[in-house]
Amino acid sequence: MSFVAVDWGTSSLRGALIDDAGRVLDERHAPRGILGVPAGGFPAVFDELFGDWMAPADRRCLISGMAGSRQGWIEAPYCPCPADAAALAARVISVVPGRIALVPGLTDSHDDVPDVMRGEEVQIFGAMHLTGVTDGVFVLPGTHNKWVQVRGSRVLGFRTFMTGEFYALLAQHSILSRTVDPAAPLDAEAFAQGVARSAHGGGLLHNAFGARTLGLFERMSPAQLASYLSGLLIGEELHTQPLDAHAEVVLIGAPALTTRYALALEGLRITPRVLGAEATWAGAHALHTALQGTDAAYP
Amino acid sequence: MSFVAVDWGTSSLRGALIDDAGRVLDERHAPRGILGVPAGGFPAVFDELFGDWMAPADRRCLISGMAGSRQGWIEAPYCPCPADAAALAARVISVVPGRIALVPGLTDSHDDVPDVMRGEEVQIFGAMHLTGVTDGVFVLPGTHNKWVQVRGSRVLGFRTFMTGEFYALLAQHSILSRTVDPAAPLDAEAFAQGVARSAHGGGLLHNAFGARTLGLFERMSPAQLASYLSGLLIGEELHTQPLDAHAEVVLIGAPALTTRYALALEGLRITPRVLGAEATWAGAHALHTALQGTDAAYP
Repeated sequence: MSFVAVDWGTSSLRGALIDDAGRVLDERHAPRGILGVPAGGFPAVFDELFGDWMAPADRRCLISGMAGSRQGWIEAPYCPCPADAAALAARVISVVPGRIALVPGLTDSHDDVPDVMRGEEVQIFGAMHLTGVTDGVFVLPGTHNKWVQVRGSRVLGFRTFMTGEFYALLAQHSILSRTVDPAAPLDAEAFAQGVARSAHGGGLLHNAFGARTLGLFERMSPAQLASYLSGLLIGEELHTQPLDAHAEVVLIGAPALTTRYALALEGLRITPRVLGAEATWAGAHALHTALQGTDAAYP
Repeated sequence: MSFVAVDWGTSSLRGALIDDAGRVLDERHAPRGILGVPAGGFPAVFDELFGDWMAPADRRCLISGMAGSRQGWIEAPYCPCPADAAALAARVISVVPGRIALVPGLTDSHDDVPDVMRGEEVQIFGAMHLTGVTDGVFVLPGTHNKWVQVRGSRVLGFRTFMTGEFYALLAQHSILSRTVDPAAPLDAEAFAQGVARSAHGGGLLHNAFGARTLGLFERMSPAQLASYLSGLLIGEELHTQPLDAHAEVVLIGAPALTTRYALALEGLRITPRVLGAEATWAGAHALHTALQGTDAAYP
């Protein structure tokens, strides 16, 4: 029996109809993130988008992402780290009993400051399944990037980095917006210069100003500066990570982002494995299968 | 003979009528930064604001700040570091010969990336004059903070940090804006927690996300989070500086900012000297006096 998987984010969502063997039969995207759903409007939006897929009375759906946040459909309390797939499955909560269930996010803590993810946990377990990597660093670039430590198929812990959001803020709203062209394609050389600069210890608050002066002195074009700034930020992120050349690194995300991280990791002589949306569906399938196998079936 | 000093910034300007002995006789502020002056409009705006002060035919005026930038009245090429007051005076350029002159900014370079300041150089030389400190670190907090190394009355070099701009971007335009109240007064304890957290090495891109989760878990109020975020940023800036407890530190700026830097420096057992706008007028007076003494008088 096939099932429906939905990754319901802040600004958009993706859904897939997946068969028993984990094959994706159909896929849908919609700009209906949780911020665009009015209070109490989740059942109607869900029905509008996936009503046809849910027509069979025994069709089930597993939702992950921000739909489980306080501003979402139903709040699914975070599952604490360390956590394996079984721990996550045990905390899946019911939206429509026996039919629609919500995957909780994960939480971790550093120096008594909490950290959270919602949705990425499904991708991580999916990526373990697809790659067979059960010990390594899983990196999920995005607005709020996640660096995840995995040992023995368990998520030991993770850190969030606001890299994607900082890039957007700096390129669009800061003084740098006057000299940076964020629509320009990746310039690998300028990107590498940014990554290298971030290793020199001046810190991001200082280095970012260099993206202003290099424009002011016409040493880089607006197109180059976009890649340079991206390199500064991704480099900054990399230099705070405990990575060595033997680290097994798995990148999960959109190619436009994973390409950049792969380039930056090259400088550390690390060749990552790279996955995209398939990690989400593989993770949902693994969780769905685990839930089917429990006595309670879907909660 | 008294003279007019103007510190003409990006979004506003300040002017003072200063007598031979350096006493400020009158002071004016106006929201007429260079971004608000139409092309070719500088003479008219200057006349409107300072025409009465300039009425005596031999009254002179020294302008510093962004009025000397490419978008300003006339571009004054930067003076390279190291530079002392005499080097700066030698590069003052003429706007109206013998009457109105422009102070150039300073430029420095790190790893072949240029750095620049315009206006702060006058405050630095003024602060040396007022405090007698000729060796130390001069810190000028603001949108783009300057950390300046001074040895033997010379500006050896400096670094710019976009701390003020990052704070505004994060508090007003990022996801943190939902849980941070930037209008709240300083909460010294939350600020100190932010400074302490920045020393733990996670990096700003990670630590900033803590200002989100501490709100999400209701561990800090929006008012506390504003100070915490400020502490994270100022702490990040401090930890990239080569400072020790013997460093002579001079803070120059608005009390709302210098108070925060003094608090953060306290954690390093450094008690800074603190100056405000008086540094600008003292620096302008010193430069004006130096220019009067040259053969060329004002350029």
